[in-house]
Amino acid sequence: MSDKSRLVTLIPGDGIGPEISNSVKQIFGAAGVPITWESVDVTPVKGPDGKFDIPQNAIDSVNKNHVGLKGPLATPVGKGHRSLNLALRKEFNLYANVRPCKSVEGYETAYKDVDIVTIRENTEGEYSGIEHEIVDGVVQSIKLITENASRRVAEFAFKYARANNRRTVTAVHKANIMRMSDGLFLKCCRQAAEKNRDITFKEMYLDTVCLNMVRDPTHFDVLVMPNLYGDILSDLCAGLIGGLGVTPSGNIGEQGAIFESVHGTAPDIAGQDKANPTALLLSAVMMLRYMEFYEHADRIERAVFETIKEGQKLTGDLGGSAKCSEFTDEICRKVDNY
Amino acid sequence: MSDKSRLVTLIPGDGIGPEISNSVKQIFGAAGVPITWESVDVTPVKGPDGKFDIPQNAIDSVNKNHVGLKGPLATPVGKGHRSLNLALRKEFNLYANVRPCKSVEGYETAYKDVDIVTIRENTEGEYSGIEHEIVDGVVQSIKLITENASRRVAEFAFKYARANNRRTVTAVHKANIMRMSDGLFLKCCRQAAEKNRDITFKEMYLDTVCLNMVRDPTHFDVLVMPNLYGDILSDLCAGLIGGLGVTPSGNIGEQGAIFESVHGTAPDIAGQDKANPTALLLSAVMMLRYMEFYEHADRIERAVFETIKEGQKLTGDLGGSAKCSEFTDEICRKVDNY
Ligand SMILES: CC(C)[C@H](C(=O)O)[C@@H](O)C(=O)O
Ligand SMILES: CC(C)[C@H](C(=O)O)[C@@H](O)C(=O)O
Repeated sequence: MSDKSRLVTLIPGDGIGPEISNSVKQIFGAAGVPITWESVDVTPVKGPDGKFDIPQNAIDSVNKNHVGLKGPLATPVGKGHRSLNLALRKEFNLYANVRPCKSVEGYETAYKDVDIVTIRENTEGEYSGIEHEIVDGVVQSIKLITENASRRVAEFAFKYARANNRRTVTAVHKANIMRMSDGLFLKCCRQAAEKNRDITFKEMYLDTVCLNMVRDPTHFDVLVMPNLYGDILSDLCAGLIGGLGVTPSGNIGEQGAIFESVHGTAPDIAGQDKANPTALLLSAVMMLRYMEFYEHADRIERAVFETIKEGQKLTGDLGGSAKCSEFTDEICRKVDNY
Repeated sequence: MSDKSRLVTLIPGDGIGPEISNSVKQIFGAAGVPITWESVDVTPVKGPDGKFDIPQNAIDSVNKNHVGLKGPLATPVGKGHRSLNLALRKEFNLYANVRPCKSVEGYETAYKDVDIVTIRENTEGEYSGIEHEIVDGVVQSIKLITENASRRVAEFAFKYARANNRRTVTAVHKANIMRMSDGLFLKCCRQAAEKNRDITFKEMYLDTVCLNMVRDPTHFDVLVMPNLYGDILSDLCAGLIGGLGVTPSGNIGEQGAIFESVHGTAPDIAGQDKANPTALLLSAVMMLRYMEFYEHADRIERAVFETIKEGQKLTGDLGGSAKCSEFTDEICRKVDNY
């Protein structure tokens, strides 16, 4: 990593975004992570077409730094506005959306020992945005699957599996129904599997995955799939371990990556020092590993999980009554001690 | 109900289909259900286009009787064959797929008190079958949403809710992404809600439903949604209560209905008297209610659930070691005694 890459774009976001971003900054400071934050505001600006868009300075910053951390963004109210969350993924061609869901000790759910990573194609599929009204009352939406994007994300999945000591990649599809589109996606996964024979390859229908997942999630490892299926399964897996408040996420491209917490802006508790920064913090830990700051990543991650496991300083959503700042301070103390 | 409607088409199906169909026939006999089965074979016949299709006599039988019960069908092996399960739904325009998922006492899962009904649009959406390769390596699948089909299934959902003493109908969608297609579906649900103000109406994103569902399914009641989302959620809900072996299903149209177990043909245990007939039996109970044989339905349902709760005569998949015939005999004994 060059020195230049140590400048990181920070998009604090809306609602609770600024508080949880501060929490991350404070903990990174305590851990002595050698990066400099470049904070950018992405309050949407109105484009020539009247729709809101990401301001240019934010785009420039990510283009320059290649790495970003992002809090939750509110989608501008009103018909026809596109989600800025999605716009960012598209703008930088962040083709792989990676969401590791691992059971958090001390935060009880109906499941134990969940350890699943969903890898979602992030640029096309049902998210193409191409829709038509053919005649009155008849609408079509186009699911677009390309060989390039499918191959790219399939190969990413195997590379990710190998780098993270994972054994199995399962392609999730409905090629029994969408024979051509999901069929193409599946073909690309099979081809990637051929080239990566050290990793076990499986295929499973999306509906079957859902059914088996809630019966026993411990059988799943790395899952790779088209865009919409990833949207669904990543949330399902997040639910298994307790929700979006503890689930990190990374959007990876060829030119860079943006890591983000995928929960909402929680306007009802914004500014009250009540928010849980865990999802953003764990996303930041993913970012550190992406930047190859493995030691800092391990140290911070351990401090977060220790704090949750001890259960003394938890925010409300985690079942405690601590403030965001108290939870943060506790993690800082632990990071210091390691 | 006219006398004629008491003739019911029975499609035993493949693999374990014949055994579990016999189980239903035996139990219906013990309960004195006043229907006559008309068994039809749907071993697929090769059409002029070389693809396999449903034989005409099966179609004629359903058209005449308007009510059918169906075991699992194997999809002919080989590229390009369409699923006969789907073909039947399409042939008879069975527009609403209804799957009640209720926790089965005595059959433990991670969840208690699940009681959800998924109502799936069964004729269009992602199942349109319309796909193109635009250029080499670029494929599109068309999701087709029509106002007619959406309104029809939305209104069905409210009618179903009222008839079954349910309080809430939730429309499941991704209209934040597929603004036009899911938007149209959602609009139709809202309009149906306007006309059915005695039932509470809610809307929820599909991903959010999945997340909340695995955290606490007891908050859900009746869910209505486009085809693919229904495929996914019905399996997810089935998983919550223990799988497809205990989940009934009905495909309802304007001219008639086919009730079916949606599990596979289980060729590995076929013919060995090991299969669990519960899903087909509960589907047959749904059928009886559809035909307004409420007393027979209640009596058989009670006998099935009693038998499972007692836990003495369970098939292997339910955790016991009884044969299909022993499980069936036990239910017959109970039906007799009520
Ligand atoms: C906010 C929304 C548009 C987005 C999506 O549908 O992808 C979200 O659900 C996600 O998973 O990041
Ligand atoms: C067998 C398959 C084609 C079918 C579907 O996708 O609808 C099944 O999963 C179902 O839910 O009935």
